[in-house]
Amino acid sequence: MKALVYHGPGKRSWEEKPRPAIQKPTDAVVRVERTTICGTDLHIMKGDVPAVTDGRILGHEGVGVVEEAGPAVSNFRKGDRVLISCITSCGRCEACKKGMYSHCADGGWILGHRIDGTQAEYVRIPYADTSLHAVPQGADEDALVMLSDILPTGFEVGVLNGKVKPGDTVAIVGGGPVGLAALLTAQFYSPAELILVDLDDNRLEVAKQLGATRLVNSGDGKAVAKVMALTGGKGVDVAIEAVGVPATFDVCQDVVAAGGHLANVGVHGKSVALKLEKLWIQNVTITTGLVDTYTTPMLLKIVTAGRLQPRKLITHEFKLEEVMKAYDTFGNAAKEKALKVILRGA
Amino acid sequence: MKALVYHGPGKRSWEEKPRPAIQKPTDAVVRVERTTICGTDLHIMKGDVPAVTDGRILGHEGVGVVEEAGPAVSNFRKGDRVLISCITSCGRCEACKKGMYSHCADGGWILGHRIDGTQAEYVRIPYADTSLHAVPQGADEDALVMLSDILPTGFEVGVLNGKVKPGDTVAIVGGGPVGLAALLTAQFYSPAELILVDLDDNRLEVAKQLGATRLVNSGDGKAVAKVMALTGGKGVDVAIEAVGVPATFDVCQDVVAAGGHLANVGVHGKSVALKLEKLWIQNVTITTGLVDTYTTPMLLKIVTAGRLQPRKLITHEFKLEEVMKAYDTFGNAAKEKALKVILRGA
Repeated sequence: MKALVYHGPGKRSWEEKPRPAIQKPTDAVVRVERTTICGTDLHIMKGDVPAVTDGRILGHEGVGVVEEAGPAVSNFRKGDRVLISCITSCGRCEACKKGMYSHCADGGWILGHRIDGTQAEYVRIPYADTSLHAVPQGADEDALVMLSDILPTGFEVGVLNGKVKPGDTVAIVGGGPVGLAALLTAQFYSPAELILVDLDDNRLEVAKQLGATRLVNSGDGKAVAKVMALTGGKGVDVAIEAVGVPATFDVCQDVVAAGGHLANVGVHGKSVALKLEKLWIQNVTITTGLVDTYTTPMLLKIVTAGRLQPRKLITHEFKLEEVMKAYDTFGNAAKEKALKVILRGA
Repeated sequence: MKALVYHGPGKRSWEEKPRPAIQKPTDAVVRVERTTICGTDLHIMKGDVPAVTDGRILGHEGVGVVEEAGPAVSNFRKGDRVLISCITSCGRCEACKKGMYSHCADGGWILGHRIDGTQAEYVRIPYADTSLHAVPQGADEDALVMLSDILPTGFEVGVLNGKVKPGDTVAIVGGGPVGLAALLTAQFYSPAELILVDLDDNRLEVAKQLGATRLVNSGDGKAVAKVMALTGGKGVDVAIEAVGVPATFDVCQDVVAAGGHLANVGVHGKSVALKLEKLWIQNVTITTGLVDTYTTPMLLKIVTAGRLQPRKLITHEFKLEEVMKAYDTFGNAAKEKALKVILRGA
């Protein structure tokens, strides 16, 4: 089969690889019909994720059809249409029993990381019963790919960890796909104001269409002053960090109000200076997390009901075999005005 | 009257000051029968709290008798025995309505900070109805002084923010009065292990008597390795920072397990390096806070019922007029083996 293979920082190719087979009775092999590229894949390409080694097939999002199910798989069989979760969970370890699937002792984020991923014609999914979801009849399968990772990430790690509630003022710092996923799902809880902070006017415009009530272009370095002005000097109830660099974390810690929540969603490569000399007295809560995907079934229902349109995050469409070009487009997101790209298999 | 007055960093005196009077109808004037010295007072003496200006009477803890109540005070009258909360709350602002009394728009921690405090023969208490508590009949009033600040601080900002629950492994870093208050109150929730980390063997011994199940002397700089060894490499469910310096915060962020809570209680004078490059994926929750004292009524009940003995934290007794000497003792806590000192009025 063909697959997108990582060959060390900056090097990738679309090449022939052996088609995956069932290795354990709990595995399934899925023919990939839809996949996409994540910001995390770009981090990998930069060499930021050393656990990803030469020869790894990338990708951890997708929708497909079960090609083969191991003998211990009971929820799915050949021909079933499935949504692949970015998080593999055994369902039986201590972390899984707590619902913290991201820290599954034999899973977590392993697809396109520690084992081969979804940017390929076929992918092996360990613990298929607890790591796949049935695709509802008639679903928009392009849109469902957004539920593999970015929707639950923005929702769980941003909105739920940040405890967004009715009447809140929320600032989302970063208008990439995950920030916009937080923006979409924050609206489940009827906040009063949704402030979107980004450097890119195009993304701000998209955010406005998706429900942001206030836009802050941070390109002048004055994001903090602008957010404080918009909140009458009080700051925000919830600040969601959706970039992953010290500067955006700083904006969040500078705008969070006393008693507020700072939900970190971004993937960080270095430490940040936490201003405890100011924050110790501020009764703030700071959360971090990899997505557990425990909300995926709920998100599937709400998308199926038409109350959430993740398709709005898709800006570009490619054939799977054009994945090299799709990486170029996604890697140049500002110029290409790219949010999520969808890659369709044969 | 006599009072302990701050005259800039390093300078204090026991001197004659005008006796306070009712300034607003919601005020009460309390004759101080018991007070104490807080670690925060030592911070003030070092010049770490610039809002405290020359001439300020220090102290924010105490038990006394209402000498005079303003016309708008309805819960208390002359002669009532009262516990003074370190937090003054108007009860009517947005923060108070949320129960976040520490951020009261016209109160919060103001005693011995922005207005004159309790290390004096008399003290004016604004918003007496919502800032004083009736002393139960027959109570041990020395012990109750521990409920002005340190018990609710250790409990609310450490134990409750840290979400200690049955079966948890808890590390408390810092065995001073507030750390020990967290140790005492953590036991309400039946954790499996209570690890106390401190530099001082005397404090560790006290902690053992107060319920610590494991002791870690951090004097060799190996606290992290020791805690990890005690937890089979997993780390702790809850890490409570009860010192207020970067080194102890670092111990906490290095020992908190995936999915765990880091409750910062310490008063910090500088920023810390938050290791987001490691923590972003760890699903941790970090909290900060000044005490709100919303649990004081509950703590009063549990102390009155004899299920909590805060008297165990009192190591030294002085007359109020010996407060200068008491500062010397408390300021040299390790050598003097001092935890809380009690100062008794005439």
